[in-house]
Amino acid sequence: MNVIPKSIQRAIEAFNKLPGIGSKSAERLVFHLLKKPTSELKGLGNAVLLLKEGLVYCDVCKNLSTEPRCELCQSDQRETEVICVVEDALDLIALEKTGSYRGLYHVLHGIISPIDGVGPDELTIADLVERVKQGEVKELIFALNPSMEGEATAAYITRYLEPYNVKLTRLARGIPMGGHVEYADSQTLKRAMEGRMTY
Amino acid sequence: MNVIPKSIQRAIEAFNKLPGIGSKSAERLVFHLLKKPTSELKGLGNAVLLLKEGLVYCDVCKNLSTEPRCELCQSDQRETEVICVVEDALDLIALEKTGSYRGLYHVLHGIISPIDGVGPDELTIADLVERVKQGEVKELIFALNPSMEGEATAAYITRYLEPYNVKLTRLARGIPMGGHVEYADSQTLKRAMEGRMTY
Repeated sequence: MNVIPKSIQRAIEAFNKLPGIGSKSAERLVFHLLKKPTSELKGLGNAVLLLKEGLVYCDVCKNLSTEPRCELCQSDQRETEVICVVEDALDLIALEKTGSYRGLYHVLHGIISPIDGVGPDELTIADLVERVKQGEVKELIFALNPSMEGEATAAYITRYLEPYNVKLTRLARGIPMGGHVEYADSQTLKRAMEGRMTY
Repeated sequence: MNVIPKSIQRAIEAFNKLPGIGSKSAERLVFHLLKKPTSELKGLGNAVLLLKEGLVYCDVCKNLSTEPRCELCQSDQRETEVICVVEDALDLIALEKTGSYRGLYHVLHGIISPIDGVGPDELTIADLVERVKQGEVKELIFALNPSMEGEATAAYITRYLEPYNVKLTRLARGIPMGGHVEYADSQTLKRAMEGRMTY
């Protein structure tokens, strides 16, 4: 017997497809929405429907944008000699939230991962090399996750950029703020030791 | 500077309003959706928009339904002498999934909770009493959460039903399947001891 009306069933299935939302959470979300006024349903529903409306990739940094050139790349407040290379837009947002970086970005839209079938050609590496070739860039900061794929991607890009006079750096690895030396894994501790700084 | 296009920002905010979805999860969900084809966005968006379309409360059990009388109440496969009282439709679904209950339901749509400003009149208690009054019901099973509010709600309803010849029961409390006696809290153990059964 079908104890749940179809419209509810359909919504539960749609939420269940999202990452990190199991069938129980999906049920809870949908029954939460059922208690909300229709205006709130409209807000969420239309936000999802119109999510991609008018979105393009910035010609320069490949970040999502509503214009051919994103606000960051258009801005005259940013240092144009530094580019921070990130895996995706979420990393860019996280870095922007710190308020401590004033340069530009380059969004790779993924990371080289043979297991997942992602090769260098799927990423925006060629565009990045092209940006460096133009000569204005002095430093490239790799802000990729400290994983095998992150290292491999950085190594791959580095190889292409050797002919150009550009400083290649990466984010420091070490003990996160609020973390404990005691609980840090040995790889992290090893990197923290190697990267130690003078007071 | 606005590093995220407005449509993305709006979607993140809408997801962030859902229970259990913080701003980080909301960001992750939206960027997951951005990588999906428009058809999948349409699926979720329309499911949310049309969620309440055509939904009514069943005249009898007050469960959500597409017809004035829900499938469960219409069915001739169910025992009409037993009513299971649940807080909301999610509890009903959970009980139906067990496949072990063949009676009818009554959905209260909440629980008496003075702190949250929910009194008996906000719930469908009067309708339940009306159903019992009609005389066909022999047993009322309270399947409310074992909390102060659950107990108070059951006690309140019980008081109204005393004049009628109806057996009032509640779900057993005890150690959940797969649980450990060692880790059970003392209230649970106490209830399990009180409710012990002969082999």
